[in-house]
Amino acid sequence: MQIKVVKRIMEASEQHAQEVRQRLQEAGVVALNLISAPGSGKTSLIECAIRELKDKVRIAVIEGDPDTTRDAERIAKLDVPVVQINTEGGCHLEATMVLRALEQIDLDGVQLLFIENVGNLVCPVVFDLGETRRVAVVSAAEGHDKPAKYPALFRTAQVTVLNKIDLIPYLDFDEAQFTCDVRRLNPEMPILRVSCRTGEGVSEWTRWLQNQIGSTVSPEFAPM
Amino acid sequence: MQIKVVKRIMEASEQHAQEVRQRLQEAGVVALNLISAPGSGKTSLIECAIRELKDKVRIAVIEGDPDTTRDAERIAKLDVPVVQINTEGGCHLEATMVLRALEQIDLDGVQLLFIENVGNLVCPVVFDLGETRRVAVVSAAEGHDKPAKYPALFRTAQVTVLNKIDLIPYLDFDEAQFTCDVRRLNPEMPILRVSCRTGEGVSEWTRWLQNQIGSTVSPEFAPM
Repeated sequence: MQIKVVKRIMEASEQHAQEVRQRLQEAGVVALNLISAPGSGKTSLIECAIRELKDKVRIAVIEGDPDTTRDAERIAKLDVPVVQINTEGGCHLEATMVLRALEQIDLDGVQLLFIENVGNLVCPVVFDLGETRRVAVVSAAEGHDKPAKYPALFRTAQVTVLNKIDLIPYLDFDEAQFTCDVRRLNPEMPILRVSCRTGEGVSEWTRWLQNQIGSTVSPEFAPM
Repeated sequence: MQIKVVKRIMEASEQHAQEVRQRLQEAGVVALNLISAPGSGKTSLIECAIRELKDKVRIAVIEGDPDTTRDAERIAKLDVPVVQINTEGGCHLEATMVLRALEQIDLDGVQLLFIENVGNLVCPVVFDLGETRRVAVVSAAEGHDKPAKYPALFRTAQVTVLNKIDLIPYLDFDEAQFTCDVRRLNPEMPILRVSCRTGEGVSEWTRWLQNQIGSTVSPEFAPM
């Protein structure tokens, strides 16, 4: 019975993801699903992007968190539309939550929609949210072994952001190994080196984001 | 139906946790369930402890990982018994997995059993493994907001390890806020400041571990 239930949940979830995808395509919105461990700097990456692009690009944000509204409060200060999804202890977002959040956002004119997933390298990877692009974020402080330990995320993402690169001089971080492991899993995926703290690499991050505007979901995109 | 299934799973899990607890108590083993985000340094904390205590204390390790055996390989080099639990994509350990792992460990004479949970601040908190002590680990690089964002872990742990303190000079880490938030959630819980890289605080960590030997589960311990 348990397996049947799980299967039914996944089917419903996939159907909701298709609905999200269709709504976004109709509105011409590129949605970015940011997946990472807790504390890798997803909110900071969104903040950086908003500060750089606000005058050129219309941005909205969906913030996923198990318990608090802290991240949404940070984003709201930057004066862009933000909706908080509180998963009530749940460890990942699902498309049905995104659908409900979209009801609270006026998508008219929005070009980029950031969806900050719950900090977790396992479960969010399995759930298609209907996103246009999946962004894998790793803080250098987490160690170079993360792609090898959590391969599914790096196989299904369209870009990897290596964040907090300003810390690398103080870490035993083997960047060659990190890059090699990411390339092995996803040979063509760009790896962006960023420090939100020093600003290094932020312009490459915002340039990548701008290049996604106008994209639709590539047919080979299959997060499972 | 979904809720019923979840309830049955949780009841079975609680029963398995009781079995684990009983086996550990009979064998006089103190089991430590290490819970943290990915890359906070759980494996390094276990390695440090083994190096310091190996000649004085008999140690065994259970390593939980969604996919690889990397952490178990690191521990095996230190010549202590280690069993790998591969959750096959699952985002947390459950007591039934620990029961199976215990079948592969000779508990005779073992004093400390480290159980390294899957890196995740959400789901592992809900599952009682039958452990004697729950250890919350946070890397300073993850930010001081983690206790406020993931309160359930800090409410149910018996000790917090703030790891990678050597990075604090290079971070915007508000340690006063971190300590205040932990204290608010769990006023009596010790907070150990550790850097496995420089060795700072490692002796406080191993002293805390040695003080747990001989403990049994406190009656008020209820991880839910």
